[in-house]
Amino acid sequence: MQVWAIRSTIARFLRANGVSATILDNNSERVDLLRKMGFKVFYGDATRIDLLESAGATKAKILISAIDSPERIYQLVDEVKKHFPHLQLFIRAKNRMDAYELIDLAITHISRESVHTSVNLGVDVLQSLGHRKYTASRKAAEFIQYDEEALQKLGEMRHKKESYVESVREEIETQEKLLTEDVKFSDQREDAAWDNSNRRQSI
Amino acid sequence: MQVWAIRSTIARFLRANGVSATILDNNSERVDLLRKMGFKVFYGDATRIDLLESAGATKAKILISAIDSPERIYQLVDEVKKHFPHLQLFIRAKNRMDAYELIDLAITHISRESVHTSVNLGVDVLQSLGHRKYTASRKAAEFIQYDEEALQKLGEMRHKKESYVESVREEIETQEKLLTEDVKFSDQREDAAWDNSNRRQSI
Repeated sequence: MQVWAIRSTIARFLRANGVSATILDNNSERVDLLRKMGFKVFYGDATRIDLLESAGATKAKILISAIDSPERIYQLVDEVKKHFPHLQLFIRAKNRMDAYELIDLAITHISRESVHTSVNLGVDVLQSLGHRKYTASRKAAEFIQYDEEALQKLGEMRHKKESYVESVREEIETQEKLLTEDVKFSDQREDAAWDNSNRRQSI
Repeated sequence: MQVWAIRSTIARFLRANGVSATILDNNSERVDLLRKMGFKVFYGDATRIDLLESAGATKAKILISAIDSPERIYQLVDEVKKHFPHLQLFIRAKNRMDAYELIDLAITHISRESVHTSVNLGVDVLQSLGHRKYTASRKAAEFIQYDEEALQKLGEMRHKKESYVESVREEIETQEKLLTEDVKFSDQREDAAWDNSNRRQSI
């Protein structure tokens, strides 16, 4: 049910902000459910051109992909670039490695599951340790923005390798580079950290 | 590599905010990597009491779980409650259904992957449609808070059912209730929405 939840949550969030989305889904149970919730839903494979056309892709501005399989995502990107080049693509990726593949395909709007879940857990922990919610959330937004910039930078740098061992080695290198960047990030934020610890001591 | 990324991202985010975390991991490659990154890491199964003890669970305040298997998470919750009842638990859950199980176990700090990824994608989309980043992020925080309150409320209401068909039916009911709540949420926000649309029209 996970993907389903993701689709309905995006649609619910957009609707709560006055934006109505059309949903394409190839799971008939989810389609029934989403229709019951009042969403406009097309049943079928979102990588099929005729379905995208019926759903109004020529007039749409934005296409959000919540497809699980990386291979099907690449196929979608390929078809959309060929047939609907005006469409802005927003894509959910599992992790950093999948995101790199999307960067190679010139996709700029990428949402990585791993990052947002982790940073949110981190914010929750910081609050429990006495940090203010507002401050923790602002730091989270900064951390994510900086991590996304690093993602783009490292993504452009990296070389594609096929074997598992090589990809692990590559991941170590990436993380070491990220770590160096983290240190820069912390250094920049040192004044704020001092302010913060003084504030907490004075409570 | 997904879980690995989650673990290192939480640890990196906390470290960037001056909090050092001890990591328990049963994957030897990840352990090497995390140690290279300068984290304090214990190798082994995080549900084992002796490992938790060696890692300092008696003195720790907070335990963050990034375990994938729901069954192992429940086991961890059980062991921690028995042996380290002072530990605050922060748990990553895949989706709403897994979160309900955790609510039944009296866990209050739950981070659902599905919600944060979706809402983040939604914020990105709203920005592309001309909404201000600050406003979109604030609305996202409100939406998540409201969704978490609804999660607690519906979680307490629900009855456990075993069969797949019943769980799908239950999910339909849940979503219909959520939808009703969404309407209330949108109604409450109508004034702000007007302000916002006026603002955009005047640009």
